[in-house]
Amino acid sequence: MPLDLTTGVADLTRQLCDIESVSGNEGPIADAVEAVLRSARHLTVERDGDAVVARTTLGRDRRVVIAGHLDTVPVNGNLPVRVVGDELVGRGTVDMKGGVAVALSLAVELVAPAADVTWIFYDHEEVDSDLNGLGRLAANRPDLLAADFAILAEPTSGGIEGGCNGTLRAEIRTSGTRAHSGRSWMGHNAIHDLAPALAALQAYEPASIEVDGLVYREGLNAVGVHGGVAGNVIPDAATLVVNYRFAPSRDAAEAVAHVESVFAGSDVVVTDLAEGARPGLDDPLAQAFVAAVGATPAPKYGWTDVARFAALGVPAVNYGPGDPSLAHADDERVPVAQIESVAAGLRTWLTGR
Amino acid sequence: MPLDLTTGVADLTRQLCDIESVSGNEGPIADAVEAVLRSARHLTVERDGDAVVARTTLGRDRRVVIAGHLDTVPVNGNLPVRVVGDELVGRGTVDMKGGVAVALSLAVELVAPAADVTWIFYDHEEVDSDLNGLGRLAANRPDLLAADFAILAEPTSGGIEGGCNGTLRAEIRTSGTRAHSGRSWMGHNAIHDLAPALAALQAYEPASIEVDGLVYREGLNAVGVHGGVAGNVIPDAATLVVNYRFAPSRDAAEAVAHVESVFAGSDVVVTDLAEGARPGLDDPLAQAFVAAVGATPAPKYGWTDVARFAALGVPAVNYGPGDPSLAHADDERVPVAQIESVAAGLRTWLTGR
Repeated sequence: MPLDLTTGVADLTRQLCDIESVSGNEGPIADAVEAVLRSARHLTVERDGDAVVARTTLGRDRRVVIAGHLDTVPVNGNLPVRVVGDELVGRGTVDMKGGVAVALSLAVELVAPAADVTWIFYDHEEVDSDLNGLGRLAANRPDLLAADFAILAEPTSGGIEGGCNGTLRAEIRTSGTRAHSGRSWMGHNAIHDLAPALAALQAYEPASIEVDGLVYREGLNAVGVHGGVAGNVIPDAATLVVNYRFAPSRDAAEAVAHVESVFAGSDVVVTDLAEGARPGLDDPLAQAFVAAVGATPAPKYGWTDVARFAALGVPAVNYGPGDPSLAHADDERVPVAQIESVAAGLRTWLTGR
Repeated sequence: MPLDLTTGVADLTRQLCDIESVSGNEGPIADAVEAVLRSARHLTVERDGDAVVARTTLGRDRRVVIAGHLDTVPVNGNLPVRVVGDELVGRGTVDMKGGVAVALSLAVELVAPAADVTWIFYDHEEVDSDLNGLGRLAANRPDLLAADFAILAEPTSGGIEGGCNGTLRAEIRTSGTRAHSGRSWMGHNAIHDLAPALAALQAYEPASIEVDGLVYREGLNAVGVHGGVAGNVIPDAATLVVNYRFAPSRDAAEAVAHVESVFAGSDVVVTDLAEGARPGLDDPLAQAFVAAVGATPAPKYGWTDVARFAALGVPAVNYGPGDPSLAHADDERVPVAQIESVAAGLRTWLTGR
């Protein structure tokens, strides 16, 4: 059954949720979205796997991307969607078919937006990063992601959350010499050698760094520690795992250099590293967006797909209906009014009204 | 086939080894040992499970215990014993049928020793401490273990190793509050809170304490550390496991107080605690033993069954043939000359010759 866009953005959210689309099973919803987009003469539509990209080509001097993922985490008896009071309740209502419904509605409605728009609906966001549809597009068709600014319609309770911190994980490894603990002077204790690294962590004062008008709080923390052979053995190895969340003004090399300086003299092995994303809110286009929405932007701390845009040089923010703390909850629920207000905010901005 | 004591102590070692007696299967060897002891009119023999106790009752003013265990770790193709050059090779040659052969020979031979002697042959030394035959005797028949001095004929390469350190294990536990590591200021990091304990360990200067003429080196070491929930979570719990090896001059309460003072302010939970054993080498009886043997006593660092005597108020030393570093090795081997020299040392002491 094709999607019906005449019943409003909230009802479209319900229709999209009721097309079950757990990661890996996005085919039917991608087909339905593609059919709607191809019916709009002002859009150029391309499909890559279960990602659908629709663009206006009005020759505007600025282009924005508005993107949302089509997949959800597994259903758990929470479909079809129920309407409870003024909320929609069920899988995907928050994460993130409310945002997808807003984007799909406006893609069809706005035949002459103030900036050219690239509408992206993609697959495999809720699973392993290697499968991510936006990452696949960035690799296969970076031209489709080219833009001056990007909005990811992930749930933010209708607020604007800009950019994101980067994340680095590293292991501080120590080595020693095993011995019986009854003759400890015959060995060298690798766990004891973690003392300076832990002291550095305890004394560490994380920075707060302003980037494009938003203040990003950093953090450097142990997230794991392990060592030991047996209750009567001086251990010959120990590992401290640390996670550094760094402001988007720092690139990967700066993040590595910072961690190495904090743990100077230790054996530091970086195991995971992803740069953050600048919010780009100093751009006039973004400032017009903020003004149209009427929200005070906040920094996004967790790493999200906005960083995929940042990697392509496109500043990006999150803006969508739904309380992010309810994402993935079995009783996820979104107020109808929040879906409508996000749609109104984007419409105001994109039409200049 | 009964044991033949006429062929010398080295050959008796071979005979004892060839009666397989892996822990739990000490019946046949205990039967053979009991039969030999009961044939000696000067001994009063009692049996408790597979432990055999034989005593002289000469009314001497001093009594010594000489003890050895009858069991071995599992056989691994290393029986029957082979004679290679001037060594016996095979399971039990080091740990500890050489010592058992010396004790059994002298028990029969010495009808009028200078001190009354309690000869103890026991089971289940190589397995869980709860099963230990000497521990069972200490619980069931403490009167049989009463003495002024004890010698455990465990392998010491023919040297004297006196007493043993005590051992205490404790956990230093920290607790915090979980949070996403992207918003670390919302949580409290339990791993970071291990920093003072690790700093204390790294700065710790272990004591060397003279007890009854021997110097015991202490040690306080981390033997394990663990903490962490996931790579993006501020951990709410962490544990550091420490092992304190303490001189036999300290009792359990003093050891606990010491560890608590080192980690003052931390949550210290003692999980395992065993007092050490004084060597008792300041006793004239022990000094005569040292003189007769002609060896310079050394402290024993590892916890051994001598501590079971110490718990009964009996100072104790280890003295036996075989290199202790070969105990449990598949190619364990003992020089015949070392078995004979240990027998000679004990004979000299017990006869006053």
